[in-house]
Amino acid sequence: MSEQTPSADAASKVLQPVRWTDGALSLLDQRLLPEETVYLILKTPQDVWDAIRELKVRGAPAIGIAAAFGVVLGVQDFSGDVRELAAEAVRHAEHLATSRPTAVNLFWALDRMKARANASAQAGAATPDAIEALLAEAQQIQAEDEETNRKIGEFALTLFRDGMGVLTHCNAGGLATSKYGTALAPFYLALEQGIALKVFADETRPVLQGARLTAFELQQAGVDVTLITDNMAAHVMSKGWVQAVIVGTDRVAANGDVANKIGTYGVAVMAKAHNIPFYVACPLSTIDLSTPTGADIPIEERHPDEVTQGFGKRTAPAGVKVYNPAFDVTPNELVTAIVTERGIVRAPYAEGLRQLFEG
Amino acid sequence: MSEQTPSADAASKVLQPVRWTDGALSLLDQRLLPEETVYLILKTPQDVWDAIRELKVRGAPAIGIAAAFGVVLGVQDFSGDVRELAAEAVRHAEHLATSRPTAVNLFWALDRMKARANASAQAGAATPDAIEALLAEAQQIQAEDEETNRKIGEFALTLFRDGMGVLTHCNAGGLATSKYGTALAPFYLALEQGIALKVFADETRPVLQGARLTAFELQQAGVDVTLITDNMAAHVMSKGWVQAVIVGTDRVAANGDVANKIGTYGVAVMAKAHNIPFYVACPLSTIDLSTPTGADIPIEERHPDEVTQGFGKRTAPAGVKVYNPAFDVTPNELVTAIVTERGIVRAPYAEGLRQLFEG
Repeated sequence: MSEQTPSADAASKVLQPVRWTDGALSLLDQRLLPEETVYLILKTPQDVWDAIRELKVRGAPAIGIAAAFGVVLGVQDFSGDVRELAAEAVRHAEHLATSRPTAVNLFWALDRMKARANASAQAGAATPDAIEALLAEAQQIQAEDEETNRKIGEFALTLFRDGMGVLTHCNAGGLATSKYGTALAPFYLALEQGIALKVFADETRPVLQGARLTAFELQQAGVDVTLITDNMAAHVMSKGWVQAVIVGTDRVAANGDVANKIGTYGVAVMAKAHNIPFYVACPLSTIDLSTPTGADIPIEERHPDEVTQGFGKRTAPAGVKVYNPAFDVTPNELVTAIVTERGIVRAPYAEGLRQLFEG
Repeated sequence: MSEQTPSADAASKVLQPVRWTDGALSLLDQRLLPEETVYLILKTPQDVWDAIRELKVRGAPAIGIAAAFGVVLGVQDFSGDVRELAAEAVRHAEHLATSRPTAVNLFWALDRMKARANASAQAGAATPDAIEALLAEAQQIQAEDEETNRKIGEFALTLFRDGMGVLTHCNAGGLATSKYGTALAPFYLALEQGIALKVFADETRPVLQGARLTAFELQQAGVDVTLITDNMAAHVMSKGWVQAVIVGTDRVAANGDVANKIGTYGVAVMAKAHNIPFYVACPLSTIDLSTPTGADIPIEERHPDEVTQGFGKRTAPAGVKVYNPAFDVTPNELVTAIVTERGIVRAPYAEGLRQLFEG
């Protein structure tokens, strides 16, 4: 293990993916990381739709936040009455909801924006006040996310011990959220507290969020991280280097089945074969009690080019058939625990997840 | 399933990786496939050493064949007496054996060349005749490989049924051998016989032999192949699309542990979790009874750049720690059967493999 010295607020070294400034949304273009740090200025809901679709912003919480600000962009100059404003906000929200199908935080954040707009309309608020309330709601979603993630990190850290090796897949870090991340939050808190963890980051084909984002943000913060290709995870586990796996998720079904970046299910299978606990970290906004099981979660399929020329040059024969699902579902029996801002839930999940929302 | 029409000698459509012509070794540069088809002309043993080291030629049988011709390149103009010739051949063979550590066919082929040279010396042959005998030995190794692979393919095909989905990892195809390949041989024979198989090819990071070579050679021959990233294999299995896995190997230990391209072990774990048989195809020259178990097989580690900029551009932060083993070991209990040119061996492997060599 390399030595880690305590570092105050390690997560603050991570670039912020979404910032609201001067009536526009400033968005870190994550497709260009780690080589280039470019903030895009988005001015319309369609700009935000495109940015989500094209993975300029990604990560379940971050796309929820970006979409909420997208609604604000659509109505901030609106001059009709408040009922028309609400209808306009709902229209933008419904369009933004079509940008990606799997992550439930997107729909959750947009539902909050729609509810806020409708509440202003019902209360007969002045249009400028209603617009201000929508902006406040989006900012509140972002601020809550940061607080939520810190709590998730605190709960998750109780599962780890000094000197442990922890493997993660994709990026559920500061770049996927407002701050800290979900699955990566305990790594930042460990660093603040001088607890040495050795992190293995799967590169996460095809879009390499593990190589480009997780390895990058952990390295920037000073966390001990080793990059591997996805197909090395089983080998690394067999060497006894991994004592826990932790990942984020795009949607947890009511029965505890977990949708996350493609490859997560394979990691869970491999973890079980090596008797390694498999943890999932997420806010309550990622848990969708209206989705009964993983089989009911729509799985986005993306363009074959991500597989055949995902690195700027063609690496497969032209015209070859490709299957490119962006997510997979890990069945609840492979999930050791789900870590939320309200605590750690273990099987049976149907009951435990329901109780979270009653708490 | 897509329809497949019978195709005579489907494997003949695959580019030949190693050809001896006019006193030089003509070698297909596999790093440039599938975009460019470039044959390199190698004139010295060091050229061959470099080509093996840099993966211009790869695949256990193909590097054995290339190395054998490498010895010929080193002695073909030799004018001393036959004992000096033999010493020179042995010297070149021993250097060529240092090019890569894991695949046993390399050492097996070079041992045949050394034995041939020493036999000529002991017989007091004329130097030109001894050189001719070395060339004949290398050509014999290549010719035997083609015949061996066809037999492996015939035995392997008995394990498959029309309509089955079969997943393979890395490239154990015509490009890895003289012709047909080992794990891919049954796919070519199936095509010749009108048996429809649906092949899933793992892209096989970091060097993408699955995307660049397996998908390419199967597509060229007309086999129904679908390319996936390595981390999609478990998801594809969970959908019920895979009824068998077949892979090649770089070395089989005496107890049936199997070293193969990194990621193979993970595929075997996932196959077991889905009750899918996991087959290994190889010639007897890949089985090393002098290596007791997989733990005794040296695992080559390669340069971090293969992971961080394996596609021509950097896809991970500069300076990040990387672990890049080229192979892993699949323990014998995950191997359903090993398919050789002398038939199909099942557990207990220690006994079955030993009997192969007595047969």
